[in-house]
Amino acid sequence: MSDSGEFLYTRVAQEMALAIRSGDLGAGSRLPSLRALCGRYGISLSTALQAYRQLEGEGLVEARPKSGYFAAAAACEPACEPAMSRPSAAPGAITVTRLALDILREARRPGVLNLGAVAPGPELLPLRRLLREMGALTRRQPEIIGRYELPAGNPELRAQIARFLARAGCRCRPEEIIVTNGCMEAITLSLRAVARSGDTVAIESPTFYGILQCIEALGLKALELPTHPREGVDLDALQQALESQRIAAILLVPSFNNPLGSNMPLAHRRRLAQLVEEHGVPLIEDDIYGDLGFQTPRLPTVKSFDRSGNVLLCSSFSKTLAPGLRIGYALPGRYAERFEHLKLLGNMATAGLPQLTLANYLRHGGYERVVRQAARTYQQRSEQLRRLILEHFPDGTLVTQPQGGFVLWVELRPHVDGVQLHEAALRERIAVTPGVIFSPRGDYRHHIRISCGQADGTALADGVQRLGRLAHRQ
Amino acid sequence: MSDSGEFLYTRVAQEMALAIRSGDLGAGSRLPSLRALCGRYGISLSTALQAYRQLEGEGLVEARPKSGYFAAAAACEPACEPAMSRPSAAPGAITVTRLALDILREARRPGVLNLGAVAPGPELLPLRRLLREMGALTRRQPEIIGRYELPAGNPELRAQIARFLARAGCRCRPEEIIVTNGCMEAITLSLRAVARSGDTVAIESPTFYGILQCIEALGLKALELPTHPREGVDLDALQQALESQRIAAILLVPSFNNPLGSNMPLAHRRRLAQLVEEHGVPLIEDDIYGDLGFQTPRLPTVKSFDRSGNVLLCSSFSKTLAPGLRIGYALPGRYAERFEHLKLLGNMATAGLPQLTLANYLRHGGYERVVRQAARTYQQRSEQLRRLILEHFPDGTLVTQPQGGFVLWVELRPHVDGVQLHEAALRERIAVTPGVIFSPRGDYRHHIRISCGQADGTALADGVQRLGRLAHRQ
Repeated sequence: MSDSGEFLYTRVAQEMALAIRSGDLGAGSRLPSLRALCGRYGISLSTALQAYRQLEGEGLVEARPKSGYFAAAAACEPACEPAMSRPSAAPGAITVTRLALDILREARRPGVLNLGAVAPGPELLPLRRLLREMGALTRRQPEIIGRYELPAGNPELRAQIARFLARAGCRCRPEEIIVTNGCMEAITLSLRAVARSGDTVAIESPTFYGILQCIEALGLKALELPTHPREGVDLDALQQALESQRIAAILLVPSFNNPLGSNMPLAHRRRLAQLVEEHGVPLIEDDIYGDLGFQTPRLPTVKSFDRSGNVLLCSSFSKTLAPGLRIGYALPGRYAERFEHLKLLGNMATAGLPQLTLANYLRHGGYERVVRQAARTYQQRSEQLRRLILEHFPDGTLVTQPQGGFVLWVELRPHVDGVQLHEAALRERIAVTPGVIFSPRGDYRHHIRISCGQADGTALADGVQRLGRLAHRQ
Repeated sequence: MSDSGEFLYTRVAQEMALAIRSGDLGAGSRLPSLRALCGRYGISLSTALQAYRQLEGEGLVEARPKSGYFAAAAACEPACEPAMSRPSAAPGAITVTRLALDILREARRPGVLNLGAVAPGPELLPLRRLLREMGALTRRQPEIIGRYELPAGNPELRAQIARFLARAGCRCRPEEIIVTNGCMEAITLSLRAVARSGDTVAIESPTFYGILQCIEALGLKALELPTHPREGVDLDALQQALESQRIAAILLVPSFNNPLGSNMPLAHRRRLAQLVEEHGVPLIEDDIYGDLGFQTPRLPTVKSFDRSGNVLLCSSFSKTLAPGLRIGYALPGRYAERFEHLKLLGNMATAGLPQLTLANYLRHGGYERVVRQAARTYQQRSEQLRRLILEHFPDGTLVTQPQGGFVLWVELRPHVDGVQLHEAALRERIAVTPGVIFSPRGDYRHHIRISCGQADGTALADGVQRLGRLAHRQ
């Protein structure tokens, strides 16, 4: 079977698995026939058959002779999962910045069990191999630290990133890529390239507080969209917003949104690209967790379906290889010239040595293996963490089932306050992140985000048990 | 003699030397008596005597028995130097950005004699020693590339910078320093911290095009101030502007402004700090060339006289140690909190490894020796370059006499066009920078900037000779 055939049947299987697990296709309900599946996805009969075989293998589907395919009885998990978010429908200024800064500062105290930060586990990063590449480079080319790199980035790294993006279905020339100091810089520069003070940016709800603060610092307003904990943003709501008000830009994390861990289905990605093209509105697609999905192959980025240049893809190697190298990148589409200019004025250029180090690492291979191993570990930890929370927190606590990344979003019982829980936990030297800073105006008061990037095993178990006790006490 | 005594007499000698060389104290004119000097500068008799002895040694002063001190006859050099600039008195938008970008892109072609960029000579940088420090670090602490550094910067580097700034008369606590990706980032963040779209920023004329484009990209307007080629900005004009219109910020390069190489006299620095305090207006002080002055010890930064926290000092190690490390810093005074927040949102943090590398380099010593050697070399090259220009360019061409750094500003004859000269030179594979991009609206059409950072000896001589021929041909 060819790669593309395998790619297709895995994608189809993923979408069906999601529908079955979420209960959209209830236990025992009849599934589309093979022929119907071919028609719906435009795939061959053998690819459709492969998809159902994969789902059978995972225990999600039962094949009944002469009757067809049915959702397996045990496949639909108990809910215990937050519902679609329902944020305010009016764009507004961001008011939680001060609170967010205070919270982040406190959580950095030394000796604290870190269930707060979205930093990857250092034991899952290829640090020594990267440093060997760096050492070899500096011996051969000491002058690399003596000159300014090109503002758009090192040509060899850009070539490697282009090759690498092709894997995620995104074909581009190296010259279209601009290297940045991490993903956050790519996002800030993207926002500056497409929007002006006073403009409205449509975002998921909840959204990573760093993005909210970025929007605030640039004098922009945020329009929160309803967001499903597994499928991501509600595209009907987005379409309605685009049709009824002026939206300067859309900023989404389609793959493993922080804090939800949602994964936008393939069909939604296609529709989103089309919406963006029809309305001529730029979409900033943050793909920082894109390679840390729990199922392979990953879904293509929305950028892969972008024909108009309206999508600005932003990502980095900070969650997969080395946050300390501070290397991210953007594929800013038709905003490339303005983006590059803002990059030049922002800090002239990103340092050359870490760029060439990464270029050599990527050329010499091993990236795929490293991220697969990391994603498997994060999946195990996430499942452990979810079980622990459901076990130790008060009954009725809801937890996301992330599809990738390493954070869980916890909806506490209505009488449990996330900020108070965060404060109580800090007194016990445990850092979690309160939900209020994930919305512009301090919604999600009864939510917290817990990260398992840097904790596992007994430390994680002990931490969650103590958190659960604190939640019970409120 | 104590350090501070030496410091004082050298400062006094520097100011008097400037006045004599510029003709403000004409050849043969009587200089203040020792006692008058003591009164004017608040120094002891022995310090005043030391100052006059130093000036005698430099051939600038003659001591006549029983008569006193006189400016030496040969001390006043032939002018051949541009006059104070007289820019438009109205603030305006920046319109030369597109031209600047085109010029900069073209000048980067390979195989071109680089008299354009303000990059330091790699042979004058301690690259191998820095790489040794880096190698030792990565062997001891490989995890340094696996974690995020603090947004404000590595504590050890901040401690070293605080120690280092004390040398330039600027006392501060390490916590007041914020590390950035180079000086340009410090300046962009400073501007964002103090001004909003539509505001006016007062600047020198001419001003480095990178700063002009920064101002433009942030939607700010520039008010150009008359600027003396050796003494820097005209403080009377600045004061008048502050009294007559709303100035949101002042952005100056008091030490070795690019392109003029001017050095603001000590008394002006004091007055500037006072002006800023009286008017409550933030001053962004770009000190990137501050350690590359031709006379030692250097003058204190304006920040040294800042009691109100209105001065934001910005600098970097890019011109002195290693541009490729991309390490700069700011001392943002009372704007520190907002500055740090914008830094966090801009790119989370500057990479830890180059920061700790520099911290160790600075702790182990050798910085002073490296910058003294570099400054001496740049002084020799600047003098050679000046002689070459006066020799080979059409009579009447004027050239600055920089007090530090490695660029010269050339005022061509009125019939010679700087952009055309730049284009003709590029065809002969020589890059120079046309003057038009150093003003918001394309003034300085008959100026070019020539850098001797990366060229000397016969290459420099040959290049200038060919440039001169091109200028004659126009």
